[in-house]
Amino acid sequence: MAWHFEQEREKLKNNLLALSALVEYKVQRAVEAFTARDDDGAGGVIAEDIDIDLMEVDIEEECLKLLALHQPVASDLRFIIAVLKINNDLERIGDEAVNIAERTCFLARHAPVDVRFDFTAMALKTQNMLRRSLDALVAHDADLARAVGAADDEVDILNRRAYQVIQQAMRRDPERVEQLVHHLSTSRHLERIADYATNIAEEVLYMIEGEIVRHKPEVFQ
Amino acid sequence: MAWHFEQEREKLKNNLLALSALVEYKVQRAVEAFTARDDDGAGGVIAEDIDIDLMEVDIEEECLKLLALHQPVASDLRFIIAVLKINNDLERIGDEAVNIAERTCFLARHAPVDVRFDFTAMALKTQNMLRRSLDALVAHDADLARAVGAADDEVDILNRRAYQVIQQAMRRDPERVEQLVHHLSTSRHLERIADYATNIAEEVLYMIEGEIVRHKPEVFQ
Repeated sequence: MAWHFEQEREKLKNNLLALSALVEYKVQRAVEAFTARDDDGAGGVIAEDIDIDLMEVDIEEECLKLLALHQPVASDLRFIIAVLKINNDLERIGDEAVNIAERTCFLARHAPVDVRFDFTAMALKTQNMLRRSLDALVAHDADLARAVGAADDEVDILNRRAYQVIQQAMRRDPERVEQLVHHLSTSRHLERIADYATNIAEEVLYMIEGEIVRHKPEVFQ
Repeated sequence: MAWHFEQEREKLKNNLLALSALVEYKVQRAVEAFTARDDDGAGGVIAEDIDIDLMEVDIEEECLKLLALHQPVASDLRFIIAVLKINNDLERIGDEAVNIAERTCFLARHAPVDVRFDFTAMALKTQNMLRRSLDALVAHDADLARAVGAADDEVDILNRRAYQVIQQAMRRDPERVEQLVHHLSTSRHLERIADYATNIAEEVLYMIEGEIVRHKPEVFQ
């Protein structure tokens, strides 16, 4: 029974990592489509959301099966609860990638606007946070999970910078506010992805250290 | 043992309802402060966020204790997993109320702008969704949970309307874009609260009907 649980636990972890890889790739493609004004690419990101949704449902059902059949306690229980919550956050990151793709579809059909902000750099930072939060889960690495929290502050600063740049553009070119609002939203979607990655890192820390670190910002310092 | 579990389950439900009432009241106060341009009121909403955070942590610990000590299965297990996830969503609704309060602090210190949109009506709709999603949990009422999903579409329509009205104001008065962006964000925070209420209703439906209804929009029709 114990050996069987170990196997199931390993399988669950691998499924979560597969979902995470898919979500990360989706964010990457959404941002590439956004910067290239690529309507078709964005459409692809929107169409494929069902894959992520189905994987999320499967992983949640696996968690419930493990809880009911093996009735784990202590660190095994904490692991499954962490997977349940991380799974949920990954699905919501997928939704944010879809939101970026929807903005892109609108923008690709309208004249380009001049926004001097490096969305690609911001996106790379958030993808990096997501990857490290899952690496921390696999390696059981509390320090790596803490580093994700620190990176979130950098993304918040970039988001504020984007808002300033875009508001300047709105004052310069008020006829283009609709396009510019879609740029604002894209920055905010990236910032939310970073928030979700931070939630994931907090879940990993909680799993490792057995205490709830949410709402304790000092843990991340 | 079974009787003891029943008691603990009842206590858990009551704690979740207390958290929900606090969160709902917080949203109400945040929106009142927003419409009244009340800096002090908004400051109060921000300062008290710690209460909600502590309640969320307590409820999560209670859930884990129940899972470890009583090893529930079937509907009892589904109930606890639903509480875990609803708890999480309630805390995030509290964060959105804080976001509205932060926008209000900025706006109260700057000249008012003319935005012809009824934020109070939108807020009442979202609060109503939140209340009904928790009523559905208490009454084990699948139809009520489904009605919350339908109301979410109405809030999405209001949010799109707010965006149109605010973008018109930006074109009319480009010097005030910063204030107007804070209005946009407030509409978006309300729309996110409605999304979280919908997530809660989905969790309730899942708990009642034992199948995962997320990503199945037809269930809500």
